Amino acid sequence: MRATRFFISTTKEAPSEAELVSHKLMLRAGLIKRLGSGLYTWMPLGLRVLRRVEAVVREEMNRAGAIELLMPAVQPAELWEETGRWAVFGPQMLKIKDRHQRDFCFGPTHEEVITDVARREIKSYRQLPVNFYQIQMKFRDEIRPRFGVMRAREFLMKDAYSFHASKASLAETYQIMYDAYTRVFSRLGLTFRAVAADTGAIGGSASHEFHVLADSGEDLIAYCPDSDYAANVELAEAVAPATQRTAPQETLREVETPKQTTCEDVAALLDIPLTRTVKLIAGMVKGSAGEQMVALLLRGDHMLNEVKLGKLEGFSDFRLANEAEIRAVFNCSPGFLGPVGLDLAKIRVIADHTVAAMSDFVCGANKPKYHLAGVNFGRDLQEPDVVADIRNVASGDPSPDGQGTLQLCRGIEVGHVFQLGSTYSQAMNATYLDEAGKSQAMEMGCYGIGVSRIVASAIEQHHDEKGIIWPATMAPFWLVIVAIGYGKSEMVRQAADTLYAELIAAGHDVLLDDRDERPGVMFADAELIGIPHRVTVGERGLKDGVIEYQPRRAAPGQSGEAQKITLADATEFLTGLLGH
Amino acid sequence: MRATRFFISTTKEAPSEAELVSHKLMLRAGLIKRLGSGLYTWMPLGLRVLRRVEAVVREEMNRAGAIELLMPAVQPAELWEETGRWAVFGPQMLKIKDRHQRDFCFGPTHEEVITDVARREIKSYRQLPVNFYQIQMKFRDEIRPRFGVMRAREFLMKDAYSFHASKASLAETYQIMYDAYTRVFSRLGLTFRAVAADTGAIGGSASHEFHVLADSGEDLIAYCPDSDYAANVELAEAVAPATQRTAPQETLREVETPKQTTCEDVAALLDIPLTRTVKLIAGMVKGSAGEQMVALLLRGDHMLNEVKLGKLEGFSDFRLANEAEIRAVFNCSPGFLGPVGLDLAKIRVIADHTVAAMSDFVCGANKPKYHLAGVNFGRDLQEPDVVADIRNVASGDPSPDGQGTLQLCRGIEVGHVFQLGSTYSQAMNATYLDEAGKSQAMEMGCYGIGVSRIVASAIEQHHDEKGIIWPATMAPFWLVIVAIGYGKSEMVRQAADTLYAELIAAGHDVLLDDRDERPGVMFADAELIGIPHRVTVGERGLKDGVIEYQPRRAAPGQSGEAQKITLADATEFLTGLLGH
Repeated sequence: MRATRFFISTTKEAPSEAELVSHKLMLRAGLIKRLGSGLYTWMPLGLRVLRRVEAVVREEMNRAGAIELLMPAVQPAELWEETGRWAVFGPQMLKIKDRHQRDFCFGPTHEEVITDVARREIKSYRQLPVNFYQIQMKFRDEIRPRFGVMRAREFLMKDAYSFHASKASLAETYQIMYDAYTRVFSRLGLTFRAVAADTGAIGGSASHEFHVLADSGEDLIAYCPDSDYAANVELAEAVAPATQRTAPQETLREVETPKQTTCEDVAALLDIPLTRTVKLIAGMVKGSAGEQMVALLLRGDHMLNEVKLGKLEGFSDFRLANEAEIRAVFNCSPGFLGPVGLDLAKIRVIADHTVAAMSDFVCGANKPKYHLAGVNFGRDLQEPDVVADIRNVASGDPSPDGQGTLQLCRGIEVGHVFQLGSTYSQAMNATYLDEAGKSQAMEMGCYGIGVSRIVASAIEQHHDEKGIIWPATMAPFWLVIVAIGYGKSEMVRQAADTLYAELIAAGHDVLLDDRDERPGVMFADAELIGIPHRVTVGERGLKDGVIEYQPRRAAPGQSGEAQKITLADATEFLTGLLGH
Repeated sequence: MRATRFFISTTKEAPSEAELVSHKLMLRAGLIKRLGSGLYTWMPLGLRVLRRVEAVVREEMNRAGAIELLMPAVQPAELWEETGRWAVFGPQMLKIKDRHQRDFCFGPTHEEVITDVARREIKSYRQLPVNFYQIQMKFRDEIRPRFGVMRAREFLMKDAYSFHASKASLAETYQIMYDAYTRVFSRLGLTFRAVAADTGAIGGSASHEFHVLADSGEDLIAYCPDSDYAANVELAEAVAPATQRTAPQETLREVETPKQTTCEDVAALLDIPLTRTVKLIAGMVKGSAGEQMVALLLRGDHMLNEVKLGKLEGFSDFRLANEAEIRAVFNCSPGFLGPVGLDLAKIRVIADHTVAAMSDFVCGANKPKYHLAGVNFGRDLQEPDVVADIRNVASGDPSPDGQGTLQLCRGIEVGHVFQLGSTYSQAMNATYLDEAGKSQAMEMGCYGIGVSRIVASAIEQHHDEKGIIWPATMAPFWLVIVAIGYGKSEMVRQAADTLYAELIAAGHDVLLDDRDERPGVMFADAELIGIPHRVTVGERGLKDGVIEYQPRRAAPGQSGEAQKITLADATEFLTGLLGH
């Protein structure tokens, strides 16, 4: 492509509303243009990147045996009413009335539509398993669209749905798709982790999220550098301490803590590690006799995990207690609460595994301006009613697979695989006849990739102060020929045109910058746009028969500095770079 | 692709609501699946065809220098308010409110959005001309969606928009796009015509529609078989008769026509050609003194063309008169109206060119149950107030280009090119600085192709009683290998697999029908689906080292009957068919 026949539109400054580096760089490089809140036009340069990502996704879906189709974006409400999701999906779903006042939505996802297709098309176990996918613009009416295409309202998604005659077949396709996702993100040059995820409200039995690792990510992930283990922090298991509780060494005593209402402050005052303190979080759960108070005990440095807590029996509707409720039971203000001397008829005590293994700890005295030290279970208070894993894992915790210790990092979710089971097929009566001629509900899986979000996450991982550094598989152009004085110098024009024609003939996606711009502008654009390889053709070099090559990012073990290559060897040299 | 790893779902019968042959065959062949009124899922087989059409369109757009981008489907109302189209577009536009009750639409077209992009991106004449295109699902809330994807609500469209610094530049790009469209439809194997079209309410200076010729088409087209001339009947010029009016030969006389209220009936009664009769159509137009009656005179066999009439000065709001209005002026019931003896203070007479050249004609007598014969202008009534072209052309009329006579045919509109001029750029203030530094409104062109509609129109042109006959460029597969007893015969399996592998390796898109079906089912599916070439691999032939080849449609000069080819020569033979 010649720059003069393409549309390149870069700017020095990004609009002030752009916070993320990917959002800034996509606007500055002219990849996208804002139309409205969460709505972006993919400009020619950006669309080339998007299509490259889409192509890799499509190749790997086809390789995994998934079959592409294309469902309407506009979906009738009736299908959503069959699964009950019309009422519960919430304002994220863009609802529409047509000219006849019938209800539709701009599809945020397609479980209902594909299940409708399956129940009409699939009659027999002989047609199973089958795995359909599509690549399509979706719409989700985010309450606060932001970060450019990272959290846009209209976005490109690959969604796949598989149908099975057994859970074993579902598990098999799930693994095939898991492997395909791994290939997709690897081929796109992304550093990512597949993390075990919460199956949440939809039900279903297994689920993994694929996260691109980046400091700007919205999700917190726990992973083990020494193994494959990774999980969303909401789900990562905090392993119970391997060591037994030690026998009490200290006597129980009150300590004055006049202004110290947090474990951090108390530990500082007493000059003890935070890991010797215990905090009490008061909450309410619904029981047979109305709401009852519960006391959650966590080590001072640990964070409550409400997802894990909610999975304990009777805790699905847990909420934090308000100050009035706390005062009514503890007769004390928050900040000095503790588990000693509680009225156990009114309050249940749930201790995290770590707390249950502690002795000689410090906690609130249920008396304003006082804490207790040298506290021990069995001696100073009863053993907890329940001991469970109710905290977030922390950096340095043992990995649940026993292979090392956990680290925390942030991630951007770009993919999700999910064993749905028969939730949708039962609700919509999507059945098949099994070998015995008996009607059975199909097992289902669903598998999503945020195609447009991948573009932004790749930039979060691959950029420097000059701009984007595209992974080779995603780059809008593989190489740019910067022709200095193309319009003025016959020598430059001939050399650049010849090299360009040779590389195009060899099947490479090359940009020839034949614009009438200053060299500095052309270099800055090439760097901002992030084209992996650059050659500069100028009169000065050509007089010696050479042109200059420079990679956007130094190859491993290379300096990355500009190097001269002879014009005669250029095509061979550049073709040899493929794959770097 | 192996049939057992693909999704083929054919049926013997089409649902009764399908009227058009293309709609029936698309449903029977399993190309599409209905989701709701005017909403279709493109099943795997159908999507392959759609993508092939899309690929040809994209290639020709790129070759024409258009640059691909992708705008959001969801558009803010504010932009449409700038051009005034939010109010006037009507219920075809699907209007949406987001969670903040802001107005949006699911874009039926993108003039406003692209003009917004252009006014932000284009500052100087040096950036012009530029031509952007996208291929995207559009939504138009048709009052009566029908004919499958021929008139669906959600449909795939290629829309391009060009911006220019002069009308000459616009005309140049218009011609380039016109030529590109010609290549697109030619490559897709369609019989089509580019017809001059009405520029209608949008304004603009030139417009052509591209029609695929088919009896089921909704549009009537006049074309000259001896030249390139073609126009929508609404627009085709009816050339004024070359010969002068002859002198009166007959005397004016009343003839009794007791039950004859149409020209056809009168001509039959009098045993004269219909071309000797004149009909009067009474209508109303708004004048300075309120509505006034007008009498339109047309030859008995001609049809009024309201588009042409509406372009006459003072006729833009023409409507037909009702019976009360007619009786008030003519004192006679419709069916016996004529131009003789009218009160010319109350009524203006507009004659079509053909009528103005007639003598000795027959018309109504303004007296129930009577007509007049031997009527002549000048002698029996005044010359008409206005003589103009106000009729549809008829088959056999001279072609306006003087190259022969016109024929009529029906067409399906699949493309439209349009010189918009500066209507949108002025309304939205899309300006650039010219060479003198002066701000100017950009000239615009727009160019659409109905990608999904092409699939249906191709079937209208290419089918037989067995099913679809795809043009080669559009076929979902180029060739099908029907392997009889694939699962049972090792000999068949080996031969079919080898041939399949060789053809795939040579880059061909081949379907291997390895299903456990009866030969008749496999043959019928291949014919219904319309795959251009078929080879049959069976044990009987293989014992003699042969397989059978049969084309879906006989090549010109060929019988189209099955022929035996040796297995050894098969790949060479089949590869040699490419392009047929």
